[in-house]
Amino acid sequence: MLFASARKPVRQGRKRHARPTRRRFQADSQGASRPGRGVLAWATVSRNLAFDLLTDAVPLPEPSGPAAFGAPGRSIVLVGLPGAGKSAIGKRLAQRLGLPFRDADSEIEAAAGMPITEIFARYGEAHFRDGERRVIARLISGPPIVLAAGGGAYADARTRRAVRDSGAIALWLRCPLPVLIRRVAGREHRPMFLNAEPTEVLRHLMATRHPLFAEADITVDCSDESPEYTTRRVAEAIAAWVPPQRLPVRLGDRGYDILVGPGLLAQAGGLIAPAIPARRAVVVTDTIVGPLHLPALRAGLAAAGIAVATEIAVPAGEASKGMARLTEVLETMLAAGVDRRTTVIALGGGVVGDLAGFAAAVALRGLPFVQVPTTLLAQVDSSVGGKTGVNLAAGKNLAGAFHQPRIVLADTATLATLPPRELRAGYAEVAKHGLLQGPLWDWCEANGRAVVAGDHAALAHAVIESCKLKSTVVAEDEREESVEGGRALLNLGHTFAHAFEAECGYGGELLHGEAVGVGLGLAAALSARLGHCSQELPGRVMQHLADCGMPARIRDLRRRFTVEALLGRMAKDKKVRDGAMRFVLLRGPGDAFTSADVPRETVAGLLRDEGGV
Amino acid sequence: MLFASARKPVRQGRKRHARPTRRRFQADSQGASRPGRGVLAWATVSRNLAFDLLTDAVPLPEPSGPAAFGAPGRSIVLVGLPGAGKSAIGKRLAQRLGLPFRDADSEIEAAAGMPITEIFARYGEAHFRDGERRVIARLISGPPIVLAAGGGAYADARTRRAVRDSGAIALWLRCPLPVLIRRVAGREHRPMFLNAEPTEVLRHLMATRHPLFAEADITVDCSDESPEYTTRRVAEAIAAWVPPQRLPVRLGDRGYDILVGPGLLAQAGGLIAPAIPARRAVVVTDTIVGPLHLPALRAGLAAAGIAVATEIAVPAGEASKGMARLTEVLETMLAAGVDRRTTVIALGGGVVGDLAGFAAAVALRGLPFVQVPTTLLAQVDSSVGGKTGVNLAAGKNLAGAFHQPRIVLADTATLATLPPRELRAGYAEVAKHGLLQGPLWDWCEANGRAVVAGDHAALAHAVIESCKLKSTVVAEDEREESVEGGRALLNLGHTFAHAFEAECGYGGELLHGEAVGVGLGLAAALSARLGHCSQELPGRVMQHLADCGMPARIRDLRRRFTVEALLGRMAKDKKVRDGAMRFVLLRGPGDAFTSADVPRETVAGLLRDEGGV
Repeated sequence: MLFASARKPVRQGRKRHARPTRRRFQADSQGASRPGRGVLAWATVSRNLAFDLLTDAVPLPEPSGPAAFGAPGRSIVLVGLPGAGKSAIGKRLAQRLGLPFRDADSEIEAAAGMPITEIFARYGEAHFRDGERRVIARLISGPPIVLAAGGGAYADARTRRAVRDSGAIALWLRCPLPVLIRRVAGREHRPMFLNAEPTEVLRHLMATRHPLFAEADITVDCSDESPEYTTRRVAEAIAAWVPPQRLPVRLGDRGYDILVGPGLLAQAGGLIAPAIPARRAVVVTDTIVGPLHLPALRAGLAAAGIAVATEIAVPAGEASKGMARLTEVLETMLAAGVDRRTTVIALGGGVVGDLAGFAAAVALRGLPFVQVPTTLLAQVDSSVGGKTGVNLAAGKNLAGAFHQPRIVLADTATLATLPPRELRAGYAEVAKHGLLQGPLWDWCEANGRAVVAGDHAALAHAVIESCKLKSTVVAEDEREESVEGGRALLNLGHTFAHAFEAECGYGGELLHGEAVGVGLGLAAALSARLGHCSQELPGRVMQHLADCGMPARIRDLRRRFTVEALLGRMAKDKKVRDGAMRFVLLRGPGDAFTSADVPRETVAGLLRDEGGV
Repeated sequence: MLFASARKPVRQGRKRHARPTRRRFQADSQGASRPGRGVLAWATVSRNLAFDLLTDAVPLPEPSGPAAFGAPGRSIVLVGLPGAGKSAIGKRLAQRLGLPFRDADSEIEAAAGMPITEIFARYGEAHFRDGERRVIARLISGPPIVLAAGGGAYADARTRRAVRDSGAIALWLRCPLPVLIRRVAGREHRPMFLNAEPTEVLRHLMATRHPLFAEADITVDCSDESPEYTTRRVAEAIAAWVPPQRLPVRLGDRGYDILVGPGLLAQAGGLIAPAIPARRAVVVTDTIVGPLHLPALRAGLAAAGIAVATEIAVPAGEASKGMARLTEVLETMLAAGVDRRTTVIALGGGVVGDLAGFAAAVALRGLPFVQVPTTLLAQVDSSVGGKTGVNLAAGKNLAGAFHQPRIVLADTATLATLPPRELRAGYAEVAKHGLLQGPLWDWCEANGRAVVAGDHAALAHAVIESCKLKSTVVAEDEREESVEGGRALLNLGHTFAHAFEAECGYGGELLHGEAVGVGLGLAAALSARLGHCSQELPGRVMQHLADCGMPARIRDLRRRFTVEALLGRMAKDKKVRDGAMRFVLLRGPGDAFTSADVPRETVAGLLRDEGGV
């Protein structure tokens, strides 16, 4: 309650707005042809009078003609500590962008017909915050405006959610403490600073609110520069801002978003915080990715006040995906004092995601989990869908859990550090998604080489389209229970791929994606032999993968494979059901299906013709 | 289709029933004041005519006056192979019990107005089975009858389910092959035996149907004895039959039944089969329980044709509940070729149940799971609710999963083999349930000594009432997410208990139940000190546990505990949330609540006064 009255006094001149507002509310109710509703509202809201009125009745901004060049087409909510310049910058920014300016506190007071201090005193802070949130939501639900939010408004989790859900841009004016102290000089008479040292008040606010303001979409660092200069920098930041793509994975109460974009690591804390139960985490990464990306993630988490209990770097490589390493990760986490509200963050490729995700699934019978994939393979495939697990001696991924992440941050900038071979291998899953999706296959044939060459735009497109496809499939068949179709289709090429991987061992001779690439060609060839697709498709698939610099046929693997050994591996595949091998087959790009009706001899013949012995 | 026509020829004399039946159907439809419905039915069911008629129209058995002594108050469905005597025994049994007798095949033919062979020929077997199921369901939905089911009826999974759901008793007349062969001699003209060797037909039927008939509630073995003699034995079996108690755990699509009763192991296959996706399993047990109970379970599973891929016996004791043993169990399962429809059956106490359940949760990302608890502790507590897991170096049960069983078989006869100390330790959880439930605590005070002395009736009551309480709590809070109350209440006494266990190690010096017993007394004492319950309650709790031969106070443990060490252990409890210790406290028996508002000094003082140093 220290800051319960940290509010500007109401400006008397606007008080007269209260009465017309009230009248408008009544007219609205009656206009809706629901006789008695207005009366009922009047009769039942006595205690909540001020807010029940102002929530429905805050006047919407007047349309202000076409917005000026540079206006982003949505509202801008300025947040920051007292003295950050929310009103001063806000007014100038509104003028520059040709948008109306509103001050949330003033709107509240005008609508309620009483100063905020009085609302606090009469109804308490919880009630005030509740109303404040509804006022802000209403203000930004109409045509775009620039809104200066009250200092404490954006510190309220539900208000932050309302701003996020509205599509408005939250912009944080971040000021160093000395600047704020100078700016609030002369405001010592305000309730906020009564009986308190302004410096101490600001220091405390900074400690508690900065981690919350870190959830803003854009942060602009301010100094003692002129308001005009800051306004220009703010407008530039808005114009330059590219919001991350947000793809929802619709899984009911286990649903989550995949965020795709460059530079997400630096904002990780603000992006993750709304999706997790408490600002505590452990980070699992590997010895290669850690040095590259952990510093950025660490800073991003710290900005939002997410405390990291421990950072665990496992040796890079498939060998870490086993029960022994899992046990070690679990023991380390527990020794670091994780509790049920501590989030496990996986920073790395598929091995780290699968291992950390499985650890999260079983530690204390389930911890919240976040995926921060840093390889193309992980961004387009393994980080989405909740499959986690480790390998057993008996085979790959044989122990694991379905454990959906709370959010996935696919920072496409991290792909720049990826070795070319890994980038190419990851691209095999993109090509697979292309074959499953249809139009994406055409895009692949046209742009695949740009992807494997590291072209940023092509990479981003590949990640987004892959995540779109995968999230749709996962939403329809979360636990791979659909017998025909569903998640099983994502195994296109994988029955073959797993056999090659098993034969080569998991030491890096053959990457998973490389095996998938060869598997895609074989799946197409098998489909053609069985008469399901055109005879041209296998050649197109193999040629495309070869064009992208990947092994595309068995003979490209430069190793002898016996047909018997490969068939033996396939018979042990997880997809085997009641003893029958199952394959994903193609009628063409965009038209895949599963089949248990594939003669063993046809598969054997194909493998022989393709170079098996 | 080999047995598609394995049906008796219709008796011509009953064909005349068809017409009155049809009339009755029309009258019913019109009597229900839905004009046109009868006509619509006629118009739309052309293809399904026979069954749509007979399903609604099978005449209900006439009331037959009060049933004779020995009648079980529900219908009896006789199943068995051709020649088993379903009709011959059925008629005599009906007379003996004073119930009407019906023959399912005759009823179907009479209602449909055509021989079964013709229904098969016209509409196919699937359609016939569908109608057959509905006819049987209707016949047994009225007042009790004795029903001879068609030979193939009970071999249909949905008909078995219909019989089970109706509450009727399914009774299997099991005959050896030679007896059947002798009895069907002279029936060679029947469609079933046309163009086939009766012995081969019967042998095939026996192989395919006996595993399904094993789902019957009662099995009576028959020989060449007279029908009168068999009838007497059947009537005696019905009179002697005590159905297992069936307690539903209501968890939506993860819901399951707990079955409690003596001798369930021998029927395990028939009881489990309806709850699992395929008749394949692996059994996990330990080196003590295996030799005692595995033979009975094995035979029970074999009777229902449940193939056991492997039996895994881990060393008895808490040490098996770790990641290394888990890995070994997983590797053994996978090497044995389990697939996603193979069920993991846990036969043993809490260690086996937790370990096997966790293995089931993660093998191939989740296999079906069945609990067959053989200790009192497991029957009243650990086998119900889906908590599975292993211990880490950092503490007990720190890695695990919520994985609900498909069914729990608590065979109370297995408790006879339990060492007295384990029986007593298990009783602590019953006493805990008593304190949570209220009236059960009074029952405990009156009957606890009988339970720990091994009294069968008292044990069965304790198991049933405990499972009732626990299943209700679990259904309301499956994943222990309720902050106040819910599953957390089941931790009454456990914050203390876990501290004692951790101090003593897990080598058998202090059993979990013994620790819980001491914990219950301390929880009551803490509640009394905080003024929540009467000052008498702690004494009552401690006295009762002492009366039952258990350690009831810290000093009974004959070991030095330092208050600091105990408090340190408590601070690491899984229930700690945002740093605060949580206790389950009592206002009295039947009135428990959770609280984070317990001063550390109060706990320290209590531990000191009770003998901590």
